[in-house]
Amino acid sequence: MKHMLTVVKAGGRLVEDDDARREVLDLLTRFAGPLVFVHGGGALASAMSRRLGIEPRMHEGRRITDADSLQVAVMVYAGWMNKRIVAELQARRRPALGLTGADLDLVRCRRRPAGEVDWGYVGDIEAVQVGALQPLLGAGITPVVCAITHDGRGQLLNTNADTIAAALAIAFRQTTPLPVRLVYLLDRPGVLRDAEDAQTLIGRLEHGAYERLLRAGAIHTGMKPKLHNAFAALQAGVDEVWLGNPASVAEGTATRLALSVTAQTAAP
Amino acid sequence: MKHMLTVVKAGGRLVEDDDARREVLDLLTRFAGPLVFVHGGGALASAMSRRLGIEPRMHEGRRITDADSLQVAVMVYAGWMNKRIVAELQARRRPALGLTGADLDLVRCRRRPAGEVDWGYVGDIEAVQVGALQPLLGAGITPVVCAITHDGRGQLLNTNADTIAAALAIAFRQTTPLPVRLVYLLDRPGVLRDAEDAQTLIGRLEHGAYERLLRAGAIHTGMKPKLHNAFAALQAGVDEVWLGNPASVAEGTATRLALSVTAQTAAP
Repeated sequence: MKHMLTVVKAGGRLVEDDDARREVLDLLTRFAGPLVFVHGGGALASAMSRRLGIEPRMHEGRRITDADSLQVAVMVYAGWMNKRIVAELQARRRPALGLTGADLDLVRCRRRPAGEVDWGYVGDIEAVQVGALQPLLGAGITPVVCAITHDGRGQLLNTNADTIAAALAIAFRQTTPLPVRLVYLLDRPGVLRDAEDAQTLIGRLEHGAYERLLRAGAIHTGMKPKLHNAFAALQAGVDEVWLGNPASVAEGTATRLALSVTAQTAAP
Repeated sequence: MKHMLTVVKAGGRLVEDDDARREVLDLLTRFAGPLVFVHGGGALASAMSRRLGIEPRMHEGRRITDADSLQVAVMVYAGWMNKRIVAELQARRRPALGLTGADLDLVRCRRRPAGEVDWGYVGDIEAVQVGALQPLLGAGITPVVCAITHDGRGQLLNTNADTIAAALAIAFRQTTPLPVRLVYLLDRPGVLRDAEDAQTLIGRLEHGAYERLLRAGAIHTGMKPKLHNAFAALQAGVDEVWLGNPASVAEGTATRLALSVTAQTAAP
């Protein structure tokens, strides 16, 4: 693979199931050049919440993070998931360092103001500082970043891992001379025209086609924010954006995003 | 205070109670020079275990770490405690980085072999590598280290935080030109002749006197491993070892350990 700085994001079953996580970590060791891994772990956090008698509260498919849910999210994401991944990368002789956005002030957020819905301790990104990671990346260390951030005033916050991955890729693009690749790992080989049929894989998805699919209601609800983040990263200058499962990404058959001709020439 | 590299360890109520933790973090900001903070959090881990229906198992006052207890320890130490401390240090404009022994391969352990007692996922320290911390310390970043380590083969382990603090202090002493100070924070002003009477504070405790107190049964059970680790650090070359509460350490009235004259001259 080309020498680039790569940001890989995986969540759900891909990091929670032991076999699937092994496949993901094996993929990580295949990238040449500096690597950053961003992970979620929402299903495990929900399961742990229920064991503690805290019923996860959702609004339109998104989690409401009250104080108890925040504690569970920090314990599961920054504790159990993050450190297990770090230990498993070390076992693959891939030096790793687990991080939240609070560590090294990597991702600073503002708590989302309560409107019609009070999302609780959810943070929207204000500032990303990747400077402190550069010497670590230079030393071959893989930062492993989870979906916990902070507000700079001592409050931990929960922030979407897809958004963190895109924000990190953009920040690296703006501060390193290396080209930057962003990879969203999915439980399917890429973006599909028909979510039920892996044969309908879209190899190259242009922004214009994406907007048409979106208007036609052909984009699966769970994929919408991911594709939104993915195109935002591409538009902000990230050199390559891919979506697929570990096998399709390794083979280069995953979905690669592209700015459409109109979008590329629209800028003055 | 003198320009030294300082390793401070605190556990129990000192990190679990919000007011006490504030006092500890305020103390940390007073040290000049590179600083490393090591923390426990055992009571919170026991409480979280019970909430999950896992009854903590102890043997002679020490915790047995089965698979479920390890998960709780990782969630509480590496997750909730560690990241809250990091966020609270950031809020004090003290750049911080939370770590387990798995991160940067900082503390590698061997799982303690099962003998008469199977301690479970408990690690005894094999190797401490502080090299990767040096540039971070040079950049003014405070590593915040919790009591979780790994075996280098993907298994996380639970390791006593007092022991980790001593091992880090010794490793820094062997690899940096700066003098090294080790501080064990307690819930009392220092080592007391009578545990019930703060007036019996020992200002300077020589190794010979410590051994006499030990033989006389005057050392509180909970203090024994701490003093054992503390003297081991001093004997391994750590320049200053102190035990006290945040107030006595700040004032310099805490207990300072010293090698006794016989111990100092015993070496050939």
